[in-house]
Amino acid sequence: MHQEPVGEATYQQAVVDVLGALAYAELAGSLQLAADARDAPALDVRLTVARIGAQAWDSYTLIESRLVELGSEPEQAMAPFAAAIDGFHERSRPRDLLEVLVKAYVGDGIARDFYREVSRRVDPQTRELMERVLADHGQDDVLAATIGDALDHRADRAGRLALWGRRLVGEALAQTQRVAVERDALAALLVGAWEVPGAEADLVELGRMLTRLTEAHTVRMRRIGLSA
Amino acid sequence: MHQEPVGEATYQQAVVDVLGALAYAELAGSLQLAADARDAPALDVRLTVARIGAQAWDSYTLIESRLVELGSEPEQAMAPFAAAIDGFHERSRPRDLLEVLVKAYVGDGIARDFYREVSRRVDPQTRELMERVLADHGQDDVLAATIGDALDHRADRAGRLALWGRRLVGEALAQTQRVAVERDALAALLVGAWEVPGAEADLVELGRMLTRLTEAHTVRMRRIGLSA
Repeated sequence: MHQEPVGEATYQQAVVDVLGALAYAELAGSLQLAADARDAPALDVRLTVARIGAQAWDSYTLIESRLVELGSEPEQAMAPFAAAIDGFHERSRPRDLLEVLVKAYVGDGIARDFYREVSRRVDPQTRELMERVLADHGQDDVLAATIGDALDHRADRAGRLALWGRRLVGEALAQTQRVAVERDALAALLVGAWEVPGAEADLVELGRMLTRLTEAHTVRMRRIGLSA
Repeated sequence: MHQEPVGEATYQQAVVDVLGALAYAELAGSLQLAADARDAPALDVRLTVARIGAQAWDSYTLIESRLVELGSEPEQAMAPFAAAIDGFHERSRPRDLLEVLVKAYVGDGIARDFYREVSRRVDPQTRELMERVLADHGQDDVLAATIGDALDHRADRAGRLALWGRRLVGEALAQTQRVAVERDALAALLVGAWEVPGAEADLVELGRMLTRLTEAHTVRMRRIGLSA
């Protein structure tokens, strides 16, 4: 079945959806990391985690400003995604510092890969903002090194942390799919309906994207010495 | 008994103490507010609290940079004050959103009054930094208005919140005194030993300062309709 060409109003809605979802992801991530940092026992690790949380907050404020520029109300734009993103955090509460660090590394990695996929399908101005927000500010190296150090002393933790990584990627992809399916405009964007107007807008392309995200996750886990 | 004139090295230590204490207060406050924001049920209040936490983080990074400029290691400068400031937060865990808001309003108010007192006794460059960090970015108005709105609907809460305010000021002053007494250089700064070299460095002036802080607290509580 062929889809009708999608109008400008719907494209605008898709962009507001993308920015609303990314804004809420950064907001929730920043508050979660700060809370995790507060509970970290050592001051140096607390600062490492707090700094990554502060970067996420800065990202949030950049997207918030852009939503206001677009005439959108940020809280309204974020609202449709709150349940899925909060659900991800509720279902992946770290039980200790190593799980906090792996969650920051894995969760942030998957989210960045996902929104980079999305950013290829939006207008240049939105893409430029997203690339700025999604740039690696060095947090990947810092986290990988911190986790590596911790695992050097706790090799016995590798098995359980590998399971933790698998749970994180499972929850993240489930929530992503849930959001994409619930929001028509966003789903159309993800399957490329705006790139090839009139193209068959089935979910095969979405499935391919999820496969690419999983592969990138495997590489990331290997880098910290864990099986994915 | 007259105190020996205090040397330059000791003054430098006092400045590092002041900045270390303020840095840790801002750091701990920012992480605590972010954690409270994460747990707030409504998105608008969550953003209000998160924004105040982000300002505290920005303050932390300003002081951290200054400590590095002074050749001091920020983590070392903060370490002597961690127990007292963490103790304050542990002994004043808010049980709900109204307590979070009153704590942000009252706690931040007392801390700002205290460090403003201290900033009068340091060199102009340090004072300029402290004044920048301690400036009211509008958070007092936002918090007073948010608390006022909440109390309009929950007049029955006024009595318990007044008790909460009293507990906060009691804990804050107890911890301040604890810090001042433990750190000789800082205590000398607080009692004005550098302003009037050789002056009697007794604790009377410290007592007067605590009285001024308590009076300012009373005014602040009255503004949100609570007895101090």
